[in-house]
Amino acid sequence: MEQRISLVTLGVSDLERARRFYATLGWAPVPDENDDISFYQAGGMVLALWDRAKLAEDSAVTDGGGWGGVTLAQNVRSPAEVDALIEEARAAGARIGREPAPTFWGGYSALFADPDGHPWEVAHNPYWSLQSDGSVRVGGDDDDDAEA
Amino acid sequence: MEQRISLVTLGVSDLERARRFYATLGWAPVPDENDDISFYQAGGMVLALWDRAKLAEDSAVTDGGGWGGVTLAQNVRSPAEVDALIEEARAAGARIGREPAPTFWGGYSALFADPDGHPWEVAHNPYWSLQSDGSVRVGGDDDDDAEA
Repeated sequence: MEQRISLVTLGVSDLERARRFYATLGWAPVPDENDDISFYQAGGMVLALWDRAKLAEDSAVTDGGGWGGVTLAQNVRSPAEVDALIEEARAAGARIGREPAPTFWGGYSALFADPDGHPWEVAHNPYWSLQSDGSVRVGGDDDDDAEA
Repeated sequence: MEQRISLVTLGVSDLERARRFYATLGWAPVPDENDDISFYQAGGMVLALWDRAKLAEDSAVTDGGGWGGVTLAQNVRSPAEVDALIEEARAAGARIGREPAPTFWGGYSALFADPDGHPWEVAHNPYWSLQSDGSVRVGGDDDDDAEA
């Protein structure tokens, strides 16, 4: 198996609500005539929003509701960017699960949950690099100090 | 918010078991002295394995157990690669949620669940491109027909 993820699909109960939320945060879907699913190109991978009941059936799982042991994160370039993104999420109606603060691992992060409860950590991790194209590497140096 | 995911963390109940499973499938973690978490560089993003209870607490969610509306997928280069990877997963002890078959959307896919029940679809999607570095694009052409 190659060491990569092509697609992360988030199951949602109200696709229009989810689309509006991500649009408010600046996400633009791939134009498509399919009304049942939205795809967002995210660097070399794709994020999808799809009906949660259909995703459960397609994934051959029973959906007990609630959280299932998966958390997403977006690394940003500074603690100030963590603060700013959390304010954007709050303004978009997200629940803020953790307010911005230093973390036990030496970074600075916060957490919001999207309208379906999917948690997103927003983190500044000084030990990982963040490239100008948005890709991250465990360790290493940023290639974009001029942008920070 | 930039349109990208830096990190996907999978909560696991037995970290050693999860590490062995992913190692059997060929995943190699970033060398680290941290025994509590494993990071896997996956193209321009990172997959992590961490204790599910700690992840729930860190994510400010209540963990009801089971699946929570997130499914991962890896796109591969041919239907035959779907078949081969599902046999690898089966040999590694994965539950096969869906055996390889043509899909309603015109591709060919199957699904396995890791030891903690996290579902992975393995798909050949003729409508998306898969680059030689493993990145995917909605639409477009592969740059690696010679490898297919």
